[in-house]
Order: sequence, then structure tokens, then C-alpha cells
Amino acid sequence: MGADLELVVGGRPIRFPAVWLRDNCPCPDCLAPGTGQKLKDITDIPNGLAITRTEDAGESVLVTFAPDQHRSAFPRAWLEDHALGDGADGDGRTEDDKELWLPPDLAELPAMSWLSYLAGGKAEALEAVLRVGFVLLSGLSAVPGRVLEVAASFGYVRETNYGRLFDVRVEPAPGNLAFTSRAIRPHTDNPYRDPAPTVQLLHCLRAAGEGGDTGLVDGFAAAADFRAADPESFGTLARTPVSFGYVDKETELRASLPLIQLSPSGRVRGVRFNNRSMRPLRRPYAEVTAFYAAYRRWAELLAQPGRQLTVRLAAGDCLVFDNTRVLHARTAFSMSPRSPGRHLQGCYADLDGLASTLAVLTREEGS
Amino acid sequence: MGADLELVVGGRPIRFPAVWLRDNCPCPDCLAPGTGQKLKDITDIPNGLAITRTEDAGESVLVTFAPDQHRSAFPRAWLEDHALGDGADGDGRTEDDKELWLPPDLAELPAMSWLSYLAGGKAEALEAVLRVGFVLLSGLSAVPGRVLEVAASFGYVRETNYGRLFDVRVEPAPGNLAFTSRAIRPHTDNPYRDPAPTVQLLHCLRAAGEGGDTGLVDGFAAAADFRAADPESFGTLARTPVSFGYVDKETELRASLPLIQLSPSGRVRGVRFNNRSMRPLRRPYAEVTAFYAAYRRWAELLAQPGRQLTVRLAAGDCLVFDNTRVLHARTAFSMSPRSPGRHLQGCYADLDGLASTLAVLTREEGS
Repeated sequence: MGADLELVVGGRPIRFPAVWLRDNCPCPDCLAPGTGQKLKDITDIPNGLAITRTEDAGESVLVTFAPDQHRSAFPRAWLEDHALGDGADGDGRTEDDKELWLPPDLAELPAMSWLSYLAGGKAEALEAVLRVGFVLLSGLSAVPGRVLEVAASFGYVRETNYGRLFDVRVEPAPGNLAFTSRAIRPHTDNPYRDPAPTVQLLHCLRAAGEGGDTGLVDGFAAAADFRAADPESFGTLARTPVSFGYVDKETELRASLPLIQLSPSGRVRGVRFNNRSMRPLRRPYAEVTAFYAAYRRWAELLAQPGRQLTVRLAAGDCLVFDNTRVLHARTAFSMSPRSPGRHLQGCYADLDGLASTLAVLTREEGS
Repeated sequence: MGADLELVVGGRPIRFPAVWLRDNCPCPDCLAPGTGQKLKDITDIPNGLAITRTEDAGESVLVTFAPDQHRSAFPRAWLEDHALGDGADGDGRTEDDKELWLPPDLAELPAMSWLSYLAGGKAEALEAVLRVGFVLLSGLSAVPGRVLEVAASFGYVRETNYGRLFDVRVEPAPGNLAFTSRAIRPHTDNPYRDPAPTVQLLHCLRAAGEGGDTGLVDGFAAAADFRAADPESFGTLARTPVSFGYVDKETELRASLPLIQLSPSGRVRGVRFNNRSMRPLRRPYAEVTAFYAAYRRWAELLAQPGRQLTVRLAAGDCLVFDNTRVLHARTAFSMSPRSPGRHLQGCYADLDGLASTLAVLTREEGS
């Protein structure tokens, strides 16, 4: 009788606590057969569990628990696949599951024609968004509203006060600098929202005559370099909540979160960067001065020209990118009667739906 | 010449670093007049700023900066309102900005008729969602789809794989225990999503003949009590990422985040709790055993009967609640040819849009 189950797999002992086993019991009383959902709460499981008996049943291990004599059959392969401590239970959202890049690392851009995407390339494109942070789809028709179809092909549009989609072009009375012809430096969108949209799409309906190039920066690669170069400043930014705000006639948004967001184990899980909408910091004096020193160094690092990948969107191109990771920018563009300026349509979506679509596609391909 | 501006307000000195002032300069070169957005990045501001001159200009303080002789006029009232260190720059999302409750604390339920909501009560209802965690709207017509109108009245529907809205009723082949007549203990929805929806709406089209009562638990109050009673277990749950998953034919979602989510300063900002969809923990052995001890204590605390507020939804009632904070539950219900069982329609939305709507309503009332 003991608190653990120990198996030896390939000469290596692997150990499972009784409570872990019981909470993951696959019998139909514990796990709903149709849904795979657990039928027991942790409080339904007796306290002070012990294993009174283990039996080898070929493919399975039979475990009997005290005090209630519940018996569970664990497939041996499942136990081997679920060894503790291997860290394989993440959701792929931190820097550890990404391919960090500087532009020279991307020998080939993650890019694909819309036709290829529709003809079996979707999984490869979505995988690029999760791994590299973006994919460039080309050859869509330059028709208003098309961007919503791209979003619907892998997930769900996140509607906001900007609508289901928004036009990025010069407006006579812009509520946002995006709607001018000015250059915009690398930033993430909507840091004044919580939850901020985690995926952004930009579909080019009309390229600028001159200028209006899109720049992309891998914020996770930058954060990893920042941590290596200046761990103290990195820590300051990960610890300091910063308020972002957006106000117009019908909207008043505010969110207060750090510029660099970490997982509980200190790995980078998100960046927010957008000086335009940063609100006055109200932390104590010493924190404010430390923050500004760190913030300047971080901004300088993000602005290094060698970090920025330049992509010129042509009419019909659609960029899909991870807004928790990849900063986007644009150069200024000119307008004249002959070149009426750049016109993009954008919308937001979320990474969880995108990853789900990829997982299902991969499952189907694998079966 | 100095690095700071110091003002004396009501006998109390308040101090602002030069870089903070300059980053918040309200002149039209620094702040776009139409949008209130900043036109300068931090890297546009000279390094090693100093204040060479301050002048009293009645309502304003004029500040001249070295090395570039930029001059800024700061309204004195604005400076007084933005004193550092007062912590007034949050977004209202942590426990500090909530009214934590046990059921006896709620002498009156936050509740309102739909007519009152439409006739000027909306701000009060939305404020209750942010402060108490929920509001009960009554007297809506029990018409399918109505829940989407309620969501649209304060924000944007978060579409998911369950659709823009979903039916909660007994289904012949349920993909989720929600779609059975079983009791469901207090939980938050969609912990397998990141971002998880932050607002949930449940609109009752048909009450159960017997049972099917809704229970609500203030997860932030519970977390605060848990921290006071067992800080070590609280810390364990705040530090341990837990994977949740949901799988059906078209969906495969996974998110890995702690059960208790903290702000950088350690204040509770979110809870996730849903044993049904928790996936096997893969942390190292010692972490797993510590986690299970803490998890059981947390589950026991959440299950204390005294924490659960019982609400019986009648046809036409719509409950709107904060899914980052309030756990919901339901009792089992009976079905018979005479009582066909409970039928709710639900949808998701987000707190940021809700808070924006409230801010604009309050602004309009105040002006």
C-alpha cells in the first residue's frame, strides 16, 4: 500500500501520485464516455487516497484505491505518454514554443497563395502563424469584406467598437493615427483592451503609390534579447502595470497590464507596445524613474532597424499575425490626385480558435 | 536645472520626473489634438532630459526642457490629479476594485427589470457587473435570440465554436455536461480558451419544473479568504499552470494558465475553475503533489454552501456575470412529459466593452 504508482519504462522509473491517477481515472463513472469530460470534482475523491493493489493486465495497469476500493485501468501507453515533469502540457503560447527570428533568419517568408491555402495549405499557413508569428496570403480578390472570409476560414471574428472589420485609410477627421498617412512605428494593436485581440488580419485593397510599406518585428525574439542584455530592465517591464486608453465619442477603453507578460515560470507570453495610447503612469516615484529607463531601452531595442522585416502588401494580399507577439509598423505614404493612397481592411480574431482549427486539420490528416 | 518638477499642493509636495512630464506633454506637437494619441515615441524624447525653467502661469505651469528647449504647459489641476504613487491608474479588474461578497452581504440582489434597464438603468446594471460580479435582468420576452440583444446593449458578442449563442438544454448526444440534466458544481466557463470570454449571459426561455436552480459564487472573495487562511496553497495555485482542454469533432481547444491569476503586484485578477475540462498535470512530481493538496483545499472552500447564492431563473430572466470572477453552478433538474426541462440560451461577451459602455454613459450623465 502506497501513495504512488511506479512504472519502469525503458529502464527509467516513472512515478505517479495516487491522487493524480485517481483524478485522471478513465472509467465511465469518472470520465463521461461521450465528451471526455470529468464527472468527479476533486472533492468527490476521498482524501488520503492510497493505492492498495496494482495488477499487470497486459496493455493496462489495474490500480485499486483505498479507502473506497475504486478500481481504475490505465493503459500503459497512456501512462508512458503522460509521465510527469516533461512539461508537455503547455498550450504553445510562450516563447518556448515559438521560432524566434530576426529578418535574416527567414530565408523564405511564410507566404502562400490563397488558392494553395484553400487547396490543402491551410494547416501549413496556420502553423506558421503559431510558430513564426505571421503568414502572408496572396492573390485574394481586392474586394471589401474579404478579410472576414479569411478570418472565418480559421476562427471567429472578434468584433470591437471598430466594427467587425475596419478600414485603414486616410480619413478627414481621424480618431486614430492609423487613419492618417503618417508613419507608424512598431506597435501592437489595442493594448487598451483586456482581453486584447490575439490575432490581427490586414487585407490590402489598394497599395500606396509610394510608401506605406508594412514592417514586422518579432516581439518575443526582442524580449529574449532584452532579457539577455538587461535582465533588470526586463524584470521592471514585466512587473510594472501600464495603463493604455482609447477614447472617442462612443468609446472609453482602458487596460492596465505590463508591457511584457510572463507565464508563471517567467517565460514570455505576450508583449504590448503602443506609445500612442499609453496613459500617464501613476506608480510611486522610484518605480516611475526605473520604468522610464527600462522602457527607453526596450523601445530602442524594438526600433533597431535590423529587427524589422519589410513587407510590401500588394492589392489582394492579406497578412495574418499574432498580435500578442508580432509588432507591426508602416512607413508614411504619399497621396495625390493620381495615387489616392493606401487602403487596407482589417479585422481581429483569436489564437485559441486558430490553434483549434490547426489541431483538427492535423488530426484529420493524421488519421 | 533639475530632473524633477516639484509642486506643493495643500501643503504636500508632489514630484514629477522630467521624462514623465515630457512623455505626457499636452502640446499639439506631442499629443494629436483630435485623438488624444501621443505623436512621439519614447525614443523621440531626448535622453538625459532636464528641466531648465519652470514658470507659474496661473492655471498652468510652464516647463522648459534641456537639451532641446521644448516647452510644455501643464494645467495645474491636471498635475494635481495625476500625482504619482496614488495607484489610480488601474483598470478596475482586480479584487481591489470589487465589492467582495458572501450571500448574506447582498441585502438586495443586483437586479433590474429590462424596462428599467432600457429606461435609464443601464449604467447601474453594468456597474453592478463590474462591482458585484453580476446583474439579474428580468421581464425580457422568452424569445430565442433575445440574449444577443442584451449583449449588444453593452458590448460585443464573442463568437466561439459554440456559435454566437448556444442553447443550454438536454441534448440526446451531449458534447458537454452542460447539455444534460445533471447538477453542475460551481465553475467558470471556457477555461480551455485564451482569451477566455470575460462576460457570460444566460437567458432563461423555460424554467425547469423542478430543480435547475442557478448558483453563484464570488471567486474573488473566495480567493481572498483562501489567501488569508492558507497563503502557501494560494501561492501554489497562482504559480502552477494548469491545462484545460475541450475536444469535439470540429474543435480542439487547449489553454494552460494558473487557477488563480494575479496582477504583477499579487492581487487577484482572475479565477479559472472547471474540473470537467482539466487535463492531466505534467509538472514535476513534487509540484504535482503540492498542487493537489492546494487544489483540494481551494475546491473545498469554493464548495462551502455558505458561499453560494441561489437564484432561480424564471422564463424571461437574463443573468449577466463576470466569468473571470463569478463561478456559476446549477442543481440537477427533472424531466417528464409534463415538464420538458430547462432551456437557457447563453452567449459570451467581454468586460472591456462593458466597462467602456458604462464609462461613456457616466460621462454623458455627468456632462
